[in-house]
Amino acid sequence: MTEFELIRQLAEGLDDRRDDTLVGIGDDAAIVRPGEGDLVTAVDSMVEGVHFFPDCDPADLGWKALAVNLSDLAAMGAQPRWALLALTLPQVDQQWLRRFVTGWRELAQTVGLQLIGGDTCRGPRAVSVTVIGSVLSGRLLRSGARIGDDLYVSGYIGDAAAGLALLQQRLAQQAREAERCHLISRLHRPQPRTATGLFLADHASAAIDVSDGLLADLGHLLRASGAAATIDLDALPVSDPLKTVVPDDATRERLILNGGDDYELLFCAAPNQRAVIASHAEISSVPLTRIGRVHAGEPGLVRAEGRSQPLLAQGWDHFGEC
Amino acid sequence: MTEFELIRQLAEGLDDRRDDTLVGIGDDAAIVRPGEGDLVTAVDSMVEGVHFFPDCDPADLGWKALAVNLSDLAAMGAQPRWALLALTLPQVDQQWLRRFVTGWRELAQTVGLQLIGGDTCRGPRAVSVTVIGSVLSGRLLRSGARIGDDLYVSGYIGDAAAGLALLQQRLAQQAREAERCHLISRLHRPQPRTATGLFLADHASAAIDVSDGLLADLGHLLRASGAAATIDLDALPVSDPLKTVVPDDATRERLILNGGDDYELLFCAAPNQRAVIASHAEISSVPLTRIGRVHAGEPGLVRAEGRSQPLLAQGWDHFGEC
Repeated sequence: MTEFELIRQLAEGLDDRRDDTLVGIGDDAAIVRPGEGDLVTAVDSMVEGVHFFPDCDPADLGWKALAVNLSDLAAMGAQPRWALLALTLPQVDQQWLRRFVTGWRELAQTVGLQLIGGDTCRGPRAVSVTVIGSVLSGRLLRSGARIGDDLYVSGYIGDAAAGLALLQQRLAQQAREAERCHLISRLHRPQPRTATGLFLADHASAAIDVSDGLLADLGHLLRASGAAATIDLDALPVSDPLKTVVPDDATRERLILNGGDDYELLFCAAPNQRAVIASHAEISSVPLTRIGRVHAGEPGLVRAEGRSQPLLAQGWDHFGEC
Repeated sequence: MTEFELIRQLAEGLDDRRDDTLVGIGDDAAIVRPGEGDLVTAVDSMVEGVHFFPDCDPADLGWKALAVNLSDLAAMGAQPRWALLALTLPQVDQQWLRRFVTGWRELAQTVGLQLIGGDTCRGPRAVSVTVIGSVLSGRLLRSGARIGDDLYVSGYIGDAAAGLALLQQRLAQQAREAERCHLISRLHRPQPRTATGLFLADHASAAIDVSDGLLADLGHLLRASGAAATIDLDALPVSDPLKTVVPDDATRERLILNGGDDYELLFCAAPNQRAVIASHAEISSVPLTRIGRVHAGEPGLVRAEGRSQPLLAQGWDHFGEC
């Protein structure tokens, strides 16, 4: 199979057509019609041995490579529209590719996203995805948090980090298979909070997605906003599988605060938004939990209720120590 | 240096601000204001050991990684506006990065392009660039060639392939240093034909950029247009350095027809456009040479004037034999 046949195969599996796509895969570039509003765009790469294991299921990789990008759009309150995919593979493997496409498509279809461009080349396995979405009103940035805002997180935090720890055999395996699988699946198939992000565009003051770890990403948001925060550790949402698989409180707290790879939304909102946020959580079945408050102080500093020492972020840093 | 400091360093060197960029590097995603017209977008990756040598000058890599993408926009007749950069590096090397930024910026500034997003991670060295541009009117596609159109190419073809052959010591080194350097520089610093592409948007029927090789890319264009073509080998534009460094006619013809990496524009236009095209070439100092004509026949087939056998494309294919 040549490079061009590979591109064609990818295109056939992935270019679920949008009306605002004028030219998709197959020319020198794609042409799209932006329409009303502003466009939001981000790029994220995943490299074998760094972001995924060599033996990972290509369907999970297809899902996750797209999910981490959609999560960035969600954190901006944007509606996903198009994506471009740069795929580097050591050799052509049709079965691998078919599974990759399956995973990608499963997620892409849920948000109406079309693949409009791509590049394939031979080399160490890596996936780089660019997504383009749009916002009609307002801007949901990291820098919008105001003193007095409530601090929230969507879904449950720490599950993905526990899933990774299970895969790396850093956690005791005594829990039931179903719970272990749930946590591993949260690592492999993160659910970008697209609908939550669209809601937050009109109700939140600031947002970031939790990829580096709750504390690290909260630090980014607070530094951008010039504020500090205090979180209530007892209020942090903990999934039942995480409670069961990690019964030790200190270990679980570490996974929740510094684990990363959650792709949940961490956001701030004025206290007068509490009712509408609670109502949205109920309707959408995505928990939106109030975990603290924003206040004046050294930008980026995070304290825990009842503890004298500030909390220390030890999040993921590709060129750092972890 | 952490990943975030690396991103900041990149951003400071590369985000020459555009008025239509609302949010650049530093948040979860960038926000841009598309304005009038449609948007054009493409992605292209370069992997160490495949697209560039491990010892290549990072400034050349910064230039070329952007240039090959701008070339795709040029082939669509689009005005470049924004770019996103995914950079994978084995380790943080400030000096390497500074030179990469220098080369990128030299080219970006000539077209008013702003870097608005990026991702860095650790791994085998690779650069993936997404560009976004815009078109105000019409669509310059591969598929627009009409029977009876003239066939043109911009600039000179074969120089970059000769430059690569020189670096790989596949060509005798007897020519003068200046000419050898010119050819190698054509490989390392291809000049995207942005202004030519903007002109062609209103005057050409079809276009493609020459990256895989003249014959291979002509084949893509003709298959997309459902047509065949005949080229006049004697009309192909040959640079003086190429004539000097490669005096052998057969070797030179092979480099010109199948060499690739030229990033010139191959385009078709109705015969009534000859005068305006000649005039544009003179004003812009970019040669636009008529090299053949489009006619009916097996789609993709290319013949040479006066030869009985069709010409065979042996262009670059990342998963093929070369």
